[in-house]
Amino acid sequence: MARVNDNYLKLKAGYLFPEIGRRIKEFTDANPGAEVIRLGIGDVTRPLAPAVLEAFHKAVDDLGTGGDFHGYGPEQGYGWLIDTIVEKSFRPLGVELKPSEVFVSDGSKCDCANILDIFDLSNKVAICDPVYPVYNDTNVMVGRTGEADEKGYYEGIVYLPCTEDNGFTPELPKGKVDIIYLCYPNNPTGTVATKEELKKWVDYALDNEAVIFFDAAYEAFITEPGIPHSIYEIEGARKCAIEFRSFSKTAGFTGVRCALTVVPEEVTATTAQGEKVALNKLWNRRQSTKFNGVSYPVQKAAAAVYSEEGWAQVQETIAYYMLNAKIIREGLQAAGIICYGGVNSPYIWLKTPEGMGSWDFFDKLLTECHVVGTPGSGFGPSGEGYFRLSAFGDRENVEAAVERIREKWGK
Amino acid sequence: MARVNDNYLKLKAGYLFPEIGRRIKEFTDANPGAEVIRLGIGDVTRPLAPAVLEAFHKAVDDLGTGGDFHGYGPEQGYGWLIDTIVEKSFRPLGVELKPSEVFVSDGSKCDCANILDIFDLSNKVAICDPVYPVYNDTNVMVGRTGEADEKGYYEGIVYLPCTEDNGFTPELPKGKVDIIYLCYPNNPTGTVATKEELKKWVDYALDNEAVIFFDAAYEAFITEPGIPHSIYEIEGARKCAIEFRSFSKTAGFTGVRCALTVVPEEVTATTAQGEKVALNKLWNRRQSTKFNGVSYPVQKAAAAVYSEEGWAQVQETIAYYMLNAKIIREGLQAAGIICYGGVNSPYIWLKTPEGMGSWDFFDKLLTECHVVGTPGSGFGPSGEGYFRLSAFGDRENVEAAVERIREKWGK
Repeated sequence: MARVNDNYLKLKAGYLFPEIGRRIKEFTDANPGAEVIRLGIGDVTRPLAPAVLEAFHKAVDDLGTGGDFHGYGPEQGYGWLIDTIVEKSFRPLGVELKPSEVFVSDGSKCDCANILDIFDLSNKVAICDPVYPVYNDTNVMVGRTGEADEKGYYEGIVYLPCTEDNGFTPELPKGKVDIIYLCYPNNPTGTVATKEELKKWVDYALDNEAVIFFDAAYEAFITEPGIPHSIYEIEGARKCAIEFRSFSKTAGFTGVRCALTVVPEEVTATTAQGEKVALNKLWNRRQSTKFNGVSYPVQKAAAAVYSEEGWAQVQETIAYYMLNAKIIREGLQAAGIICYGGVNSPYIWLKTPEGMGSWDFFDKLLTECHVVGTPGSGFGPSGEGYFRLSAFGDRENVEAAVERIREKWGK
Repeated sequence: MARVNDNYLKLKAGYLFPEIGRRIKEFTDANPGAEVIRLGIGDVTRPLAPAVLEAFHKAVDDLGTGGDFHGYGPEQGYGWLIDTIVEKSFRPLGVELKPSEVFVSDGSKCDCANILDIFDLSNKVAICDPVYPVYNDTNVMVGRTGEADEKGYYEGIVYLPCTEDNGFTPELPKGKVDIIYLCYPNNPTGTVATKEELKKWVDYALDNEAVIFFDAAYEAFITEPGIPHSIYEIEGARKCAIEFRSFSKTAGFTGVRCALTVVPEEVTATTAQGEKVALNKLWNRRQSTKFNGVSYPVQKAAAAVYSEEGWAQVQETIAYYMLNAKIIREGLQAAGIICYGGVNSPYIWLKTPEGMGSWDFFDKLLTECHVVGTPGSGFGPSGEGYFRLSAFGDRENVEAAVERIREKWGK
């Protein structure tokens, strides 16, 4: 008799974004005329950069009669893409990586979920609260937790609250943990970490032989100097950190699918017998056995992001989104709403007006302003009373949404 | 102190194909002039169909200034692709599927590895021997086995030998198993299963409340009438079988990456409390949380496989490969080598001449004929003394390889 993985049944609700989709559908089905503006899911809206499109087309032609057909590629990604990433994305930060330390994949969501495959269930995991739900849910699914309490905290996970009181900057865990998820610039709060702040975490990890999962999906949106773009800018991080990066937000690849994970050779964890094993080898084995590499034309398109033209075009799009962020932030602030983020991040994290609950504010914003955002509580209990707006919309829509919110809540 | 998943350390050698790659590299580095013909990894070589290329290009344009930008798509795949699959790939077989039963992914390797996520570790698993190594290795990695014995059998897995004696057709397991992997047309042996044969397995699964993982990656290569293309052609299979299909071999997508998995609503497995849970819901949750969907242009390219033009072009390519298969099969037979497969499958499974070991034959074939194949023992202990040749090569290369083998072994 086949048995299911019972841990899946511990998951309380549907994954956050499908639930948002369901509520939007319910509303638009009932109100077909409503012009709904979506600033909810962090999904890009601007076209791909022309240089990226050109490379994409050329690679599709390679698969035709052009005589440069490509079948299975390396599971880890093509060397020419990895070399480009090493040179253009990390070297300018003073970070030197070996090509064998970079693994190209079809998404950071997949990677930061699949990375758990190579770790023992006994590891104690710390995640921030609020947090990208995938970190939490994948640990539940794999069986690292007990049931959720009424607040939504799962037994066995160490939650690190990020609230207004601590400036959305988590404190070090009181006890010992083995795996720590950090995301900077942060999703959902839009905050960043200084080098000193990250050094605190690297030192903790080295002292406790813990591993940091560093999600840098939004590093391209850092506008202020001095803020680290990679955890490897911090001394010692090569010994304790795995970094996730993505083309999704950086280059508008949410529908194209390309990301990368860095596993430096020095990062180790321990066997039951107490031997240290390089995680790079285990991840390589995981990817070789359970993954078949990223689509060849997609990798060619990703490499073009780093061409001179491609990079300039991509920066222009990022600037477009960051002007949206400024418009949202300043517009809401003018309406008396307290906002965080939006300076080095495409997310604005706002305190709901009048102390409303996150989902109440979601429903009110949807039904009265026809604007969609993401309820802060969907990211964890400490997100209750907060709300995330994304700057990835079209300028006109962003302006219209801010105007509608101002009309509703502005004094 | 972070702990690794010790199960990874049970894996004996590198995954088969990387090991083959290593030996080829060693040989070609030492013999830069040698013209090595690769009939090893089952990788396609013919260009994409023109109709597929056209749709691919058009979809890339959609992501540009064409005004039809696509960001995140549904994790399960776009409705227009799923509807096309239901209509064109299953309905002609008399198989009716609901769109919600089809999940588009970036590869069957990923799917048949990831599907284990939704099952409890306690399930008893049966796999054929020889077999696609991913079935075996992913069960080891997830912790369902003990160590391997000296033959390479892992403790806890039920191996079903497929040898000349039983016509490469496995017998039902003696005891009770919960999960059964079947692959037809078979990789590596090239054999197929009749409806009666599959009915035997479906009945076993229904009687034992087991689940069948049916890998139909090569169904497009069936040339003889009456051979089932889908497990759902068998009565009762909707209650007990998950089917994996792929565009990789069907349409030359090994470098493009698109596949699909069918999880009918009626397939269930049991919780610790004895409740039946629909696997469709669990797989949907798995994919929503750990996967972000397939690249939009890739899905558009995949849909074009089923257009009138696309389908005709794809069939032409399949016929090309199947003529290769005939040339290999008949050529080797003329040289006195015993061969199986190659009629409803792109693989020829040959008995090594003079009773040679599989890897010995690999090395001899590589160093003396400069032809690469896949050692049968790489697929499991019962593959020892066998060897797999793939028909996916270029015609000229296939003919040259057969000629070289004939010269070496032909009487």
